[in-house]
Amino acid sequence: MNALDRLIALLSKLPGIGKKSAGRIAYHILDSDPSFAGTLAKELANLHQAIRRCGICGGFTETDPCSVCSDPGRDHSIICVVERAQDMRIIEESREFLGVFHVLGGLIAPLEGIGPGDLSIGKLIERLHSKDQTVKEVILALNPTVEGDTTALYLQKLLKDFPVEITRLASGMPVGGDLEYIDRLTLSRSFRGRVKV
Amino acid sequence: MNALDRLIALLSKLPGIGKKSAGRIAYHILDSDPSFAGTLAKELANLHQAIRRCGICGGFTETDPCSVCSDPGRDHSIICVVERAQDMRIIEESREFLGVFHVLGGLIAPLEGIGPGDLSIGKLIERLHSKDQTVKEVILALNPTVEGDTTALYLQKLLKDFPVEITRLASGMPVGGDLEYIDRLTLSRSFRGRVKV
Repeated sequence: MNALDRLIALLSKLPGIGKKSAGRIAYHILDSDPSFAGTLAKELANLHQAIRRCGICGGFTETDPCSVCSDPGRDHSIICVVERAQDMRIIEESREFLGVFHVLGGLIAPLEGIGPGDLSIGKLIERLHSKDQTVKEVILALNPTVEGDTTALYLQKLLKDFPVEITRLASGMPVGGDLEYIDRLTLSRSFRGRVKV
Repeated sequence: MNALDRLIALLSKLPGIGKKSAGRIAYHILDSDPSFAGTLAKELANLHQAIRRCGICGGFTETDPCSVCSDPGRDHSIICVVERAQDMRIIEESREFLGVFHVLGGLIAPLEGIGPGDLSIGKLIERLHSKDQTVKEVILALNPTVEGDTTALYLQKLLKDFPVEITRLASGMPVGGDLEYIDRLTLSRSFRGRVKV
C-alpha cells in the first residue's frame, strides 16, 4: 500500500465519504499546492490539543469556559440542552437562541447500553442548583427520535421539582415540506402541536 | 476563528464536501481517538514527498517507473491514454485492462485556453517511436464529452501515420440503464455503435 492508498483508506473512514469520494479528495489534494496538504496536516495534528470541552456546558472550545458560557450578553437563565457538541454549532448558526447550552454527550438508548449515568446529567442538575445563576427555562433541543423522546421524558421527570420551565422544540412539518411526503408520525405531531393563527 | 473553525474551513474546500459535511467530519475527528487525526496529519504532510509522477506514463507513484510501467507481466504493446492519473486507478480497479497507460494531464479545451501543447502528447509520440518496445494499439479512454471528443480527434489525426491501431472506448447506454432516461446523444451513439448479436 503506497502513501496515496493509505490516505484514501483513512479518508474513507470519515462520515459520508465513500471509497470513490475518498479517491477524488486524495487526488485533488495531490493536484493542489503542497501547502494545502501541509496546512490541513498541521490543523489536524494540532486539533486535539487546541480544542477541549467547556467545563460548564461541555461544548468544544479553545478557552474554558467557552465563548458562549463566558459571554455576559447571553441569557444565562435559559439553558438549551443538546445531544452533541455539534448541535450547539447548528443552533448558534441559526442565531435563533441567545441563552446558554448544555451538552448531554448522547441520548438514553437501552439497546446500545447507554443509560442516564452515561450522560452529563449530574452537571445539568448542578447548574440548576447553582446560587450564582437562577435558571428559568430548560429547552430540550433533542432530536424527535425514540432516543430523543426517551431522554426528554427522563429529564422532564427528573427536573419536575425544580422551579424551572421545561420546554421542547416544536416538532412537525419542515418549512417547504409537502403533506404528500410527510410521514404519519410527523403529521400526527403537526396536528397535536397545531397553533392558532 | 478557532482551531475547529479553521479545520472546517479547510475541509469544505475539498471536492464534494460542503459546509455541513465539513462540520460533521471535523466533529467526527474530534470525537475519535486523537491517533486518527495524528495518522491522517502525518499522511497528508508526507503525501507530496512520497508521491511523484511516473517518468514513463505520468501516473502518480511512489517508485519511478510506476508499478504498472515496470511490470513485465503487462502487455506493453497496448497503451491506454487517459485524461488524469485518477482515471488509471479506476481502470486498474476494474481489472479489465492488462496493458500500460499514458496520462495526458488534461483535455484540449480552447475555451479554457488548454491546447495540445499543455498535454503530455510529446511523451506519447516518444513512446511510439521507441525501439525497445513496439506499440500495436493505442486505446483512447477519454470521456465522451466535447473536450474528450476533440482530444480524441486530435490524437487520431496526429497518430494516423504510425503503424498502430487507434481505438476508443465504446460509448452508449450504461448497463442497467433505461431507454426512457437516456439522453439523445447517448442514444445516437448507441445506435451508431450497435453490435451484432
